Amino acid sequence: MKLNEGVAPVITLLTDFGPADAYLGCMKGVILNVCPHARVVDVSHSLPKFNIRYGAFVLMQVFRYFPNGTIHVAVVDPGVGTRRRPLVIETKRYFFVGPDNGVLTLAASEDGIKRVVEITSEKYILSGPSKTFAGREIFAPVAAHVANGVPLREIGPEVDRFQVLSIPKPKIAEGHVVGEVFVVDSFRNLITNLRPSDFEQGVKHGRLLKVEVGGVARDIPFVGTYGDVGRGQALALVGSSGFIEIDINQGNASRVFKARQGTPVKITFSS
Amino acid sequence: MKLNEGVAPVITLLTDFGPADAYLGCMKGVILNVCPHARVVDVSHSLPKFNIRYGAFVLMQVFRYFPNGTIHVAVVDPGVGTRRRPLVIETKRYFFVGPDNGVLTLAASEDGIKRVVEITSEKYILSGPSKTFAGREIFAPVAAHVANGVPLREIGPEVDRFQVLSIPKPKIAEGHVVGEVFVVDSFRNLITNLRPSDFEQGVKHGRLLKVEVGGVARDIPFVGTYGDVGRGQALALVGSSGFIEIDINQGNASRVFKARQGTPVKITFSS
Amino acid sequence: MKLNEGVAPVITLLTDFGPADAYLGCMKGVILNVCPHARVVDVSHSLPKFNIRYGAFVLMQVFRYFPNGTIHVAVVDPGVGTRRRPLVIETKRYFFVGPDNGVLTLAASEDGIKRVVEITSEKYILSGPSKTFAGREIFAPVAAHVANGVPLREIGPEVDRFQVLSIPKPKIAEGHVVGEVFVVDSFRNLITNLRPSDFEQGVKHGRLLKVEVGGVARDIPFVGTYGDVGRGQALALVGSSGFIEIDINQGNASRVFKARQGTPVKITFSS
Repeated sequence: MKLNEGVAPVITLLTDFGPADAYLGCMKGVILNVCPHARVVDVSHSLPKFNIRYGAFVLMQVFRYFPNGTIHVAVVDPGVGTRRRPLVIETKRYFFVGPDNGVLTLAASEDGIKRVVEITSEKYILSGPSKTFAGREIFAPVAAHVANGVPLREIGPEVDRFQVLSIPKPKIAEGHVVGEVFVVDSFRNLITNLRPSDFEQGVKHGRLLKVEVGGVARDIPFVGTYGDVGRGQALALVGSSGFIEIDINQGNASRVFKARQGTPVKITFSS
Repeated sequence: MKLNEGVAPVITLLTDFGPADAYLGCMKGVILNVCPHARVVDVSHSLPKFNIRYGAFVLMQVFRYFPNGTIHVAVVDPGVGTRRRPLVIETKRYFFVGPDNGVLTLAASEDGIKRVVEITSEKYILSGPSKTFAGREIFAPVAAHVANGVPLREIGPEVDRFQVLSIPKPKIAEGHVVGEVFVVDSFRNLITNLRPSDFEQGVKHGRLLKVEVGGVARDIPFVGTYGDVGRGQALALVGSSGFIEIDINQGNASRVFKARQGTPVKITFSS
Repeated sequence: MKLNEGVAPVITLLTDFGPADAYLGCMKGVILNVCPHARVVDVSHSLPKFNIRYGAFVLMQVFRYFPNGTIHVAVVDPGVGTRRRPLVIETKRYFFVGPDNGVLTLAASEDGIKRVVEITSEKYILSGPSKTFAGREIFAPVAAHVANGVPLREIGPEVDRFQVLSIPKPKIAEGHVVGEVFVVDSFRNLITNLRPSDFEQGVKHGRLLKVEVGGVARDIPFVGTYGDVGRGQALALVGSSGFIEIDINQGNASRVFKARQGTPVKITFSS
């Protein structure tokens, strides 16, 4: 994969650092110092803290929309400073930079992983007063050096084992499908691991589905968009991620269904 | 209106998507893919959800400070995926892109609307797995195509009816003025629909006003800035939007006055 | 100090305005209008409101990572519109723009102050409907004019007295050190004013420290990174700011220790 010629490189940032501290500013400063013409794009810094699955899921939804050659930095890193390794993953169209804890791999696997290197070269990382801020000392400068065209082989050795995060496969039975709440998004919608293609008979707009989430069972309509039901009504739809969501129009599905990440979801066809 | 020659086009983003999901990243990626030299500027993504009036008010305050030719994208869109139409509005100095629900029109009207088109051309929009994310599939790519110089007539047909949002006119009587809390801002200040020019006799700094908000009546000073009263004290002033605000210095006026969007406000001159 | 030739100037923004209003959009628009090629970088807009110390501390951590010539705008300004003066501070490598209340001076002092001017020239500021938004009317346009190369002597007269904020010196005694919680960061970690060099005997990883914060005394390990203790365990470490932090791994140290900004901290060596 080659970087776009003649266009300033794009570096995206996705973290759980929150917007209220020095972390983002430090990372952006480091990037602009190393690669002054980089364009730094905030994807989110308000991910739920330490929630690797959530970060991986957001990255998976976002990465594909960016120009080829974009360098995606994702830092959700409860193991910062421990032995988990810092990685650069090169895929068919992008680079991914972040910790070896799975946060990069939902996205990278989908694009097609070509090479994974562990960041080891002292030449491309900063030394700091502590070991607690790999975003500033490792991920930001390395992303900027990659944007400058430094080859991955100079950054560190290739590795062939790394943490892989994947979306659990639903159980498909006759008449029903069992999956789980994969994440609860910030609108408090329940995003499941179920896709329309998991339903043998297909799912059609307007049909009622029997949905069991945790202990709560409800017959809810499968619709095309939130506004197809009244405010406060439950609904199921294919969300913008391509997965089936259980939502309350302008409401809080997580509270109504007492559901969180990992809560089982069973959808039965009322034939 | 012509786009600035020789300067990278500016596209602003104003949404209620919150900072914690994939929505912003997707929109920014799409824009940079379609118009690689665009400069994407975050105005806010933390607007109160589904509050069209609030979004329209923020856009109205912001739009005029940007360079001519800026493309303002505003997405507060409770009716996403329903029959409400996606629009591009061309005004004297700017373009506005967003849903036909009024969120664009406080600002656009003030700049002078020249043309409104409904986005219909499949050529400039993306197809997605769902109908729930017009920001990614319609508004972002269209804004980027407009930045590339695509003429509006290629994007869709001109329309002559669209949702207009306006600021309610206050009732001006002898000795008092009646308006409402137009929005409660994030500092919990009460921003009214009253302007200094609504006061026949004028309002002078230092003067005491009798202010009734909801059921609470207070005599409060009309001042030039927050720091003119002590911490925790109530005050009225002309805010940065040009409207009269009822505030508590470093406090929460919405709680003190039990007021929210639409709560009536009466200001009486104590002669 | 000279601005970088040939690279678009960088202007950073650090405020307590919150992300949900028109404030940021207005400032960014003004900057791009005055200096169309400026690159505006969001450091944070979610600082705790009116907390000058917190803002100063974030700016101090961030400023040094940016390219030489960067213009840092910091607005935490409870005294907006009162007689506190608007300043531009030129240091060895940077410019700082903001109110004269100390928010700029932790950072500027560390870089080496060369010159301080009060912003007085009407030529470089905007007139607005109110006196409550110096960010838009004074700090943003002046920063952009500085980015354009306007000399400071045109912006206003040099001043030799201004508010200086500094980090309180800890008391170092035999066997213990007494300092304070300098700030509570958004992870609810307690960042003290103590540095490793304040400990005569040095502090070594793995050692137990007796830590008294407010009324709570605990023996906690001094470690290299959060993950060196179990989830929910207390720890002390040198944080990314270079100061010693008292933290709970993935928890809320402020609540556990009932501590806030200014709470005394005593660390005793258990010999």
